Amino acid sequence: MEGATAEADSAEGSFTDESFADVTPDAARRLLLGAVEAFAERGFHATTTRDIAGRAGMSPAALYIHYRTKEELLFQISRVGHERSVRILTEAAATGGTPAERLDAAVRTFVRWHAAYHTTARVVQYELAALGEEHYGEIVVMRRRTEEILRTVLSEGVAAGEFAVEDINGTALAVLSLCIDVARWYRTGGPRTPDEIGALYAGLVRRMVSA
Amino acid sequence: MEGATAEADSAEGSFTDESFADVTPDAARRLLLGAVEAFAERGFHATTTRDIAGRAGMSPAALYIHYRTKEELLFQISRVGHERSVRILTEAAATGGTPAERLDAAVRTFVRWHAAYHTTARVVQYELAALGEEHYGEIVVMRRRTEEILRTVLSEGVAAGEFAVEDINGTALAVLSLCIDVARWYRTGGPRTPDEIGALYAGLVRRMVSA
Repeated sequence: MEGATAEADSAEGSFTDESFADVTPDAARRLLLGAVEAFAERGFHATTTRDIAGRAGMSPAALYIHYRTKEELLFQISRVGHERSVRILTEAAATGGTPAERLDAAVRTFVRWHAAYHTTARVVQYELAALGEEHYGEIVVMRRRTEEILRTVLSEGVAAGEFAVEDINGTALAVLSLCIDVARWYRTGGPRTPDEIGALYAGLVRRMVSA
Repeated sequence: MEGATAEADSAEGSFTDESFADVTPDAARRLLLGAVEAFAERGFHATTTRDIAGRAGMSPAALYIHYRTKEELLFQISRVGHERSVRILTEAAATGGTPAERLDAAVRTFVRWHAAYHTTARVVQYELAALGEEHYGEIVVMRRRTEEILRTVLSEGVAAGEFAVEDINGTALAVLSLCIDVARWYRTGGPRTPDEIGALYAGLVRRMVSA
């Protein structure tokens, strides 16, 4: 429930975010990191491209070589974040263990990402409304995919007799929601590490669904 | 997991929000509702007092009769929202039933508020970092109180043998987090009513903590 820490945390939160490691060239990557930091501190609508360029040590004109609009930067942040979410959950769901083991892995890694990269995650989760219609449509496809992965694990657990879940859709949504909200309250240097929160949440979710 | 609906929902979300019914005079109340709407659509930093005054059908000068700064408006919204949270949880915890019944009531009503008044709740939960230090301090006291109420119910349930909870602090935080995040994804006109989500979540939380 800690709050008011987006600004304090944003610098190390975003600039160590390996989620953007694959973005090239380096200038494009630095601009995304600058945008994450600015959006987290001030919100999308209050951020100027000049501010983003400045954080990346570049001129506003140089920004437009890489991104046509501020919305394009938000879309790329959102795309990278959602691709990461889908990958985390896909890998966890494919570990080959029992449904309970796969759900455990999914919750742990999903929570860990939302805690460790809470600044990026906040932008990804809370600025969706600022995306243009077409870009929003692309993101929605990935969001549906994350829900589908969760629903599949839950359904397989029910079929195997490991889980007792009456409302698969509602429960999948609640589990993802619980993990995502970690980005809101998590604070670097707080009493729990991302791993510890992942372990706690995996246990809580296990109880939520166990037969 | 639905997103991008803050703008579409904000008007009816805020203007029907009974949480502000006690604010007087009427002009001060209308300004708070205008501020909720503007902050939800554009974020605190991108909102001007002129915009807020316009939404309330007033001049910028008239706004300053009631609120000295934009931050003062955010603080009043935050104060009303947090007072409401504390009241909801205090009443639920005082219903006189078993700990399980009281936890059930707390989750249901807390979720219902975050769904029904999701626009206000989003501003209350996501704009905390924009509060000044002194105002933030006042809000933190109320946030600690909401956690304390949850921890007490959980502890009483453990003492009564109804609950088995190893980590009272972490579990209280997770339960509140689950309820609060409803404000992020809830969409008016979606497949579930606030009551239905409240019932689903009360059941999930019950399983999370039951002995």
